[in-house]
Amino acid sequence: MNRRVVAYFVGSVLRIEAALMILPTIVSLLYREEEWIYIAVAAALSFLIGWLMSFRKPKNMSFYTREGITAVALSWIMMSVFGAIPMWHAVSHIGFTDALFETISGFTTTGASILTEVESLPKGLLFWRSFTHWVGGMGVLVFVLALLPEASGDNIYLMRAESPGPSVGKLVPRVKQTAKILYLIYLGITVTEIIALMVTGMSLYEAAVITFGTVGTGGFAVTDNGCMAYNSIQQGVITFFMIVCGANFNVYFLLVAKRFKDAFTSEEVISYLSIYAAIVIAVTINMRNMFPTIGEAIHHGLFNVASVMTTTGFASADFDTWPMFSKVLLLAAMFIGGCAGSTAGGIKVSRIVIGFKTIRKELELLVHPRSVKILKFEGKPIEHAVLRGINVYFLTYITIFVVSLLLVALDGKDFATTVTSVIATFNNIGPGIEMVGPVGNYSQFSAFAKYVLMFDMLAGRLELFPMLLIFMPMTWRRQR
Amino acid sequence: MNRRVVAYFVGSVLRIEAALMILPTIVSLLYREEEWIYIAVAAALSFLIGWLMSFRKPKNMSFYTREGITAVALSWIMMSVFGAIPMWHAVSHIGFTDALFETISGFTTTGASILTEVESLPKGLLFWRSFTHWVGGMGVLVFVLALLPEASGDNIYLMRAESPGPSVGKLVPRVKQTAKILYLIYLGITVTEIIALMVTGMSLYEAAVITFGTVGTGGFAVTDNGCMAYNSIQQGVITFFMIVCGANFNVYFLLVAKRFKDAFTSEEVISYLSIYAAIVIAVTINMRNMFPTIGEAIHHGLFNVASVMTTTGFASADFDTWPMFSKVLLLAAMFIGGCAGSTAGGIKVSRIVIGFKTIRKELELLVHPRSVKILKFEGKPIEHAVLRGINVYFLTYITIFVVSLLLVALDGKDFATTVTSVIATFNNIGPGIEMVGPVGNYSQFSAFAKYVLMFDMLAGRLELFPMLLIFMPMTWRRQR
Repeated sequence: MNRRVVAYFVGSVLRIEAALMILPTIVSLLYREEEWIYIAVAAALSFLIGWLMSFRKPKNMSFYTREGITAVALSWIMMSVFGAIPMWHAVSHIGFTDALFETISGFTTTGASILTEVESLPKGLLFWRSFTHWVGGMGVLVFVLALLPEASGDNIYLMRAESPGPSVGKLVPRVKQTAKILYLIYLGITVTEIIALMVTGMSLYEAAVITFGTVGTGGFAVTDNGCMAYNSIQQGVITFFMIVCGANFNVYFLLVAKRFKDAFTSEEVISYLSIYAAIVIAVTINMRNMFPTIGEAIHHGLFNVASVMTTTGFASADFDTWPMFSKVLLLAAMFIGGCAGSTAGGIKVSRIVIGFKTIRKELELLVHPRSVKILKFEGKPIEHAVLRGINVYFLTYITIFVVSLLLVALDGKDFATTVTSVIATFNNIGPGIEMVGPVGNYSQFSAFAKYVLMFDMLAGRLELFPMLLIFMPMTWRRQR
Repeated sequence: MNRRVVAYFVGSVLRIEAALMILPTIVSLLYREEEWIYIAVAAALSFLIGWLMSFRKPKNMSFYTREGITAVALSWIMMSVFGAIPMWHAVSHIGFTDALFETISGFTTTGASILTEVESLPKGLLFWRSFTHWVGGMGVLVFVLALLPEASGDNIYLMRAESPGPSVGKLVPRVKQTAKILYLIYLGITVTEIIALMVTGMSLYEAAVITFGTVGTGGFAVTDNGCMAYNSIQQGVITFFMIVCGANFNVYFLLVAKRFKDAFTSEEVISYLSIYAAIVIAVTINMRNMFPTIGEAIHHGLFNVASVMTTTGFASADFDTWPMFSKVLLLAAMFIGGCAGSTAGGIKVSRIVIGFKTIRKELELLVHPRSVKILKFEGKPIEHAVLRGINVYFLTYITIFVVSLLLVALDGKDFATTVTSVIATFNNIGPGIEMVGPVGNYSQFSAFAKYVLMFDMLAGRLELFPMLLIFMPMTWRRQR
């Protein structure tokens, strides 16, 4: 383990976080809120510690999977700790555990909240809370890579550890370029949505906060009842951008590069949209009697399925009151999640599609044992390593899920709350059903359960393995 | 597809079923019940149809995986249809769907029941109901193999399709011999438990019925409240035999063959007993306040964890009233199940152990990418095909689970009932929690939901693939 290079990366991330905190400080000052000082202090502390960790570039900049994965896990934890400072001090009746929960929920784009009466909080703080979604959506280390003058070593490890999905393709030969292009696309989508929401009559502040929640597929809003208060045009805009940000960003790169044929034949995006459409139809048929007109039922079907499948967690209606079939279908959509290379959580559409292909191949092999068939995805044969990675991912996913369930069950909450709180945090969605439903929140869990759910949020966002590895002694042994 | 040979096997199974039905007919006659005629008629019908299907041995006796798997799936369905006839006619207010549900639940050793007031039913019928556990526990086609004078072809396919677990080893070179030895061991355990229970004061009839439920790890009893009425010595005997029958029968073969060292170092059985002990300790600590003394808590911990983990489904206490942590732990034990090569259901301990080893290997590979490590189980390297099979099994398991959940959710029952009814049938356990808890039953589900759960029971018992393959057109195409 090259610990120096890990510290260097974590330090760089903290310095970037300090820079990012300037924006909410300005917002707070503009609204003449006295809480600006907490954000400013957190920024200063973050910069100071970050600078101490990274002011001298290590001589040996070589890093491999192990260093990349550790750097990712530690960066996200440290970033959350410093990010929690403003809320910890500015909100009364809130402990460090709750502030950390809210911040991890923000960075991991989960959107699970322990806060009640969100509308009474200072605007600068709410802005920072939602801004964490935007920062966490695309990842922070990718940002470091885009900024660093010359990061040697195999940077792809770093990017792979932080990017959602089974395999990361370099869009262009250099990782640094890839990261820059992705961030530019992300920024473009963000600005477009802010403008679109302002056209519908929202203030810049509210449009920005809701946009951060949408494009990061996070789900924090400016009021307790989320998006329920918006009109149907505003909800429509949000629906559209949730779907956009749950799709694989490679497609937008291909569009920008005018490779339209490749963009429109993306197997993952086509599967993603097909699954989305199928679930919307099934849910709408099932819950149509909950709404006065079929049009409204379709509208809320489109919004809430998009919200759940892209793991955003906004709600335009309290789906906890919908029939059981709709609820189970929404739960299934939570597990599926968005595309790889998007800001969404969940298992990811590509893994689901490849999983189904694996099952079909096995059935065919049972009928025709001597047939030879190669699994393909996006028109290319799937590498053995990717296939193995997906299988191990599923096994690890189930294991973490079951262990979390057991630990959260120690709180003795009802069955639906226990199960869906783990589902909703592990898949980075936010609301579950019952106590943690769209109109409930996570404040009543014990501190222990909250730490378990924080682990789940980080594990879900970072594709499981980084959060497991930092707890294993072998990770920390010195270079052999 | 060699359809003739499939028909021949299904016919043979029906003839054996007819023979097996003679025993409950005699029991019914001994108790002077008029319902004996329904069992006798079912036996006669079963024999007639079976004879028509198999009186002429096909010229081409060659069969491969496809034929083996189809024969297994169809045999179990046909056997259940004929096995349901006595209950369908003898019990008032019961339709064919309910009778079939109860019979499939019997043969698959699930023990999920749609009956209320079991104690008022004729004794001959109850005997047949529990006897199906005994028959289904070891499998029927294995029995056919043991009896057939000379079954050519690759018999191992047949046995593999019907035996629980990731890989079937031949204990002795010839499949026929293996089948005979397994059935003799099974018979020996059965007789021992009947005698043990009679020593504690049970009647022969009751001892036999409870023994069938235990050794088949099924769970049907003679009264509605299962094993709650028995004294602690009787419950102790049942606990012991549940654990015995959830272990890999290969171990008993090794014991019989005096290969003690191999028997006592079985990795699967050691893991099975360790997991069992760990869960008992955790559950007992958690629910100790539910009982007047710690001794009683341990006793009920031992019984109910054994019952759930071996997927028997007996209950010595209503564990639906235990704290949520215990309930979730019991649910986890339901998924784990017993050993491969036992009569128990669930995912199987060997798959779980190999799954964990796969995760550990992946983590080590991330830290040391160039390390070469071979996964071993029972001291031998795991073949690539077995490993792939296990991964595909997990994927298929999740898929069937989610689809079943959705279909059962259409009934609109509460969340815990919906989820645990699928868990309890798919893993061949019997009781879940809430409506389908230890003191509840499955009668209130719609016919549609019942058929879904029947599919799940068969899919769970037959290791998923046979029940999927019979629904695929490619299976039925003529030999290429």
